[in-house]
Amino acid sequence: MSNRQIVVRELPQGPLQEHHFELRQAARPQPEPGQVLTRTVLLSLDPANRAWMQGATYRAPVLPGEVMSGFTLAEVVESTDPRFEAGQIVECENGWQEFACQPADALTPVRRRTALPHHMSVLGLTGLTAYFGLLEVGRPRPGETVLVSAAAGATGSVAGQIARIAGCRVVGIAGSDEKCAWLTGELGFHAAINYKTDKVSRAIKEHCPAGVDVFFDNTGGEILEASLFRMNQGGRVVCCGAVSQYDTNNPAPGPRGVPGLIITKRLRMEGFIVMDFFHQREAAEAQLAGWLEADQLVAREDILDGLECAPQGLIGLLAGHNIGKRLVRVGPEPAKA
Amino acid sequence: MSNRQIVVRELPQGPLQEHHFELRQAARPQPEPGQVLTRTVLLSLDPANRAWMQGATYRAPVLPGEVMSGFTLAEVVESTDPRFEAGQIVECENGWQEFACQPADALTPVRRRTALPHHMSVLGLTGLTAYFGLLEVGRPRPGETVLVSAAAGATGSVAGQIARIAGCRVVGIAGSDEKCAWLTGELGFHAAINYKTDKVSRAIKEHCPAGVDVFFDNTGGEILEASLFRMNQGGRVVCCGAVSQYDTNNPAPGPRGVPGLIITKRLRMEGFIVMDFFHQREAAEAQLAGWLEADQLVAREDILDGLECAPQGLIGLLAGHNIGKRLVRVGPEPAKA
Repeated sequence: MSNRQIVVRELPQGPLQEHHFELRQAARPQPEPGQVLTRTVLLSLDPANRAWMQGATYRAPVLPGEVMSGFTLAEVVESTDPRFEAGQIVECENGWQEFACQPADALTPVRRRTALPHHMSVLGLTGLTAYFGLLEVGRPRPGETVLVSAAAGATGSVAGQIARIAGCRVVGIAGSDEKCAWLTGELGFHAAINYKTDKVSRAIKEHCPAGVDVFFDNTGGEILEASLFRMNQGGRVVCCGAVSQYDTNNPAPGPRGVPGLIITKRLRMEGFIVMDFFHQREAAEAQLAGWLEADQLVAREDILDGLECAPQGLIGLLAGHNIGKRLVRVGPEPAKA
Repeated sequence: MSNRQIVVRELPQGPLQEHHFELRQAARPQPEPGQVLTRTVLLSLDPANRAWMQGATYRAPVLPGEVMSGFTLAEVVESTDPRFEAGQIVECENGWQEFACQPADALTPVRRRTALPHHMSVLGLTGLTAYFGLLEVGRPRPGETVLVSAAAGATGSVAGQIARIAGCRVVGIAGSDEKCAWLTGELGFHAAINYKTDKVSRAIKEHCPAGVDVFFDNTGGEILEASLFRMNQGGRVVCCGAVSQYDTNNPAPGPRGVPGLIITKRLRMEGFIVMDFFHQREAAEAQLAGWLEADQLVAREDILDGLECAPQGLIGLLAGHNIGKRLVRVGPEPAKA
């Protein structure tokens, strides 16, 4: 009974490459008392995975020789804990492998509402990140202008749609004309900026004629700098991600205007991690599910097939190859209960 | 009837120098209906004065050929408005000159509680800046560690003392051993760091063994960068000033760690201007006056004598030559009412 795993062969010093990983055949683990054995169904690829390779963050760092870390949806195979039973779908951190044993407390039962991939996009961590970041940290008011970076990504695309539902003018920044067309077409953004072909600062000025009240930032770096100069007095910068700084061991200096513009414009820049808001998770998930069902929110996944796709999938994600939430299908879905 | 003024001859491109100013003899102005003629008694020198020369901020920029801007305490000489009468002390923005006419609405009556210079330090804009910035933006809790930069300056020295009163561990950063001795001696700071002789990052680690919960920042630049790496999860950075970036037309890039550390540590960086809190001014002033009277707060002023000292006084302030609040005595105090 084998278990295919992808382990970190060595930590990247510069951009992540395939040779930093290797596929390994291990024995399928056996649950000890209190543990649950699960089979990975879907693996989430997130820019943060690369940040975990830079060192300790809000969690322990990824280390060489270990199975690569990642969020997963998995099927319970064998449980020694009465709270879980075989066949059940759970959210857990199996990482990049087919099977894992976890303490029962490390598993969260999934209340199945819709297609399973949606539970890793709009109803999963990225959707919740967008929800709490925008509404609890950014606190937009109707009529305000919300700017979103990495807007065609898993989190940005949901954040922008929630801002639209909240009655804001929504402008997205993304890296291709195809992404921009998706934002202003299917997702209902009011405008979109292609940062690879537009001059970002001028484009923000053009598309945010009343300035920017909330900037939901997934990128950091130059886009953050350009945005700071366009913020309105009392504006809020939701520091959600810094993907421009993840794929390196030598992050760039911070944006000009820190702290000068923060003072003169009375800005609030605030970071958060979705887990900080998990006590409100159920209500948020119900709200997101309601919007999804009412076709107010579009969920889009970009699903790669097979565990062996994960390294190239993450590398491509960091280069912006995805539209929507990138997942890897590691194994078949169980029949819906 | 003359009026000595110091005007801006040209805007500095690099560090501020005396030749950027010139002394001018003008005619003493006559109040038009609705205006009040006042005589400047004390002129406040503030690092922000230099920032106003960099361009528009939260106020119109200082322009060449105009009288240099500055906050003042002045005596009413002649009033056409029934709310003011000759001999009264008011707070206003006469700038660097002996006499000015202002609309009555631009004057704030001073309720005299103590020595007049204290009304420009602890009870003036800098004391109120410290009060609101620390308590309303930083929101320290007893037992937390508060780090203050430019801690021997007008605002930092008050912010640190209020943090001490609030039951926090207080560590100051300043630019000389004399300043550090004053902080840990007379002001009751728990520790002080001389950024010119200590390695700041290591010194913060040593003196803030439990990390930094609130950083009250008056400097920006390298000290802000070093502090960000020492912040605790959920920490707050009060963006009060950026004196390291004022005396130049080419501000440095922002601190490393923005936005990466803001995210992983869930920091809040927030800017403010004291005027944002003026609706709470009276209560704050009463609280500060109470602490002053009870000897819980030390007020220290560094008073230069004569309007012609203002240029060199501001240049020296930007270089950190002051301890406490730097003022210029432009004219004699009226007899206390």
